[in-house]
Amino acid sequence: MKVYQEEFDVRTSKRTQATDITEKVEKIVKNSKVKNGICLVFLPHATAAIILEESESGLMSDIEEMIKRRFPKGAGYEHDRIDDNADAHLASGFIGQSRIYPVKDYELVRGTWQRALLIELDGPRYRRVFVNVLGE
Amino acid sequence: MKVYQEEFDVRTSKRTQATDITEKVEKIVKNSKVKNGICLVFLPHATAAIILEESESGLMSDIEEMIKRRFPKGAGYEHDRIDDNADAHLASGFIGQSRIYPVKDYELVRGTWQRALLIELDGPRYRRVFVNVLGE
Amino acid sequence: MKVYQEEFDVRTSKRTQATDITEKVEKIVKNSKVKNGICLVFLPHATAAIILEESESGLMSDIEEMIKRRFPKGAGYEHDRIDDNADAHLASGFIGQSRIYPVKDYELVRGTWQRALLIELDGPRYRRVFVNVLGE
Repeated sequence: MKVYQEEFDVRTSKRTQATDITEKVEKIVKNSKVKNGICLVFLPHATAAIILEESESGLMSDIEEMIKRRFPKGAGYEHDRIDDNADAHLASGFIGQSRIYPVKDYELVRGTWQRALLIELDGPRYRRVFVNVLGE
Repeated sequence: MKVYQEEFDVRTSKRTQATDITEKVEKIVKNSKVKNGICLVFLPHATAAIILEESESGLMSDIEEMIKRRFPKGAGYEHDRIDDNADAHLASGFIGQSRIYPVKDYELVRGTWQRALLIELDGPRYRRVFVNVLGE
Repeated sequence: MKVYQEEFDVRTSKRTQATDITEKVEKIVKNSKVKNGICLVFLPHATAAIILEESESGLMSDIEEMIKRRFPKGAGYEHDRIDDNADAHLASGFIGQSRIYPVKDYELVRGTWQRALLIELDGPRYRRVFVNVLGE
């Protein structure tokens, strides 16, 4: 049984933006040499999120648009009195800053279209991604 | 410390549908012989989701209705230009395709009403459920 | 490799209310003596939720207000025919009753503003929090 941890950074370029990070996550699973277990993809951030979805460009735009509509910027939030990013905090908290994949036979168990998307909500920024592989 | 993995299929019969899969998950936890740890319920799909909730028939209808209202079909999504199920992808990504229970004394730790519901979003289809029990 | 489990109770005082439980979670991680792994924060309830977010009082009000607006009480739900809290069940199921942190060097990996908030949705009540630390 082992725990393998690795981190990497992603540079985002827009305020609200979906970025496919699946290849980096899969490389870490390979590095871990864990055969069976789980893989946690976690962001140590309160204004970003993780979603597992198809990385088709139209769908990534749809995700960004849905977030802007559901968590509109400057909609009279109390938190905006001390900062101007309450919308980003709310989207981050409700969507969640992590997702988990099973690991089987040294690979992520995932549907073909179930890629790991980092959702920037208050960019552009550098974002840290923490990947934790637990298993045997 | 061990990792126990098992999979099963569920046949859904409607486009948007909640199905209670708790009994199958609990049987897998029993099969695992894990005393204390965690149980990951994961769907390798990008147009379905998992929710832990009461499986009362009225509430399951309420869940289905809320999904249809929040993720309406054909609402001008870009992804619909190449496929017609952007609504299902969005609901799947935002709700999430997994949930986790703790395991204690060989059983799921769960509230009485906290059953595992597979949420079909683009059915009818066969859906695969992947259950991963980690612990000692 | 070990599994460490601990539970505690929280008394809530409003129907919809965010309560910061980070200090108690961090104490349990310390008690666990797990160096590297994961920490699951789980509620065995179907009318409460967990969100990781900044515990600034304005933002906590924004979270409560967003929940009341998105999951309005008594909005014609079928479940309300047998109970009057369908809104709380729906919010709990969609937001989710758990979140996970990585653990590294005996501490939670988390952003400064990424605190664990218990979200009461049908209070006031006593709520049980189950914390599960897995790792080496």
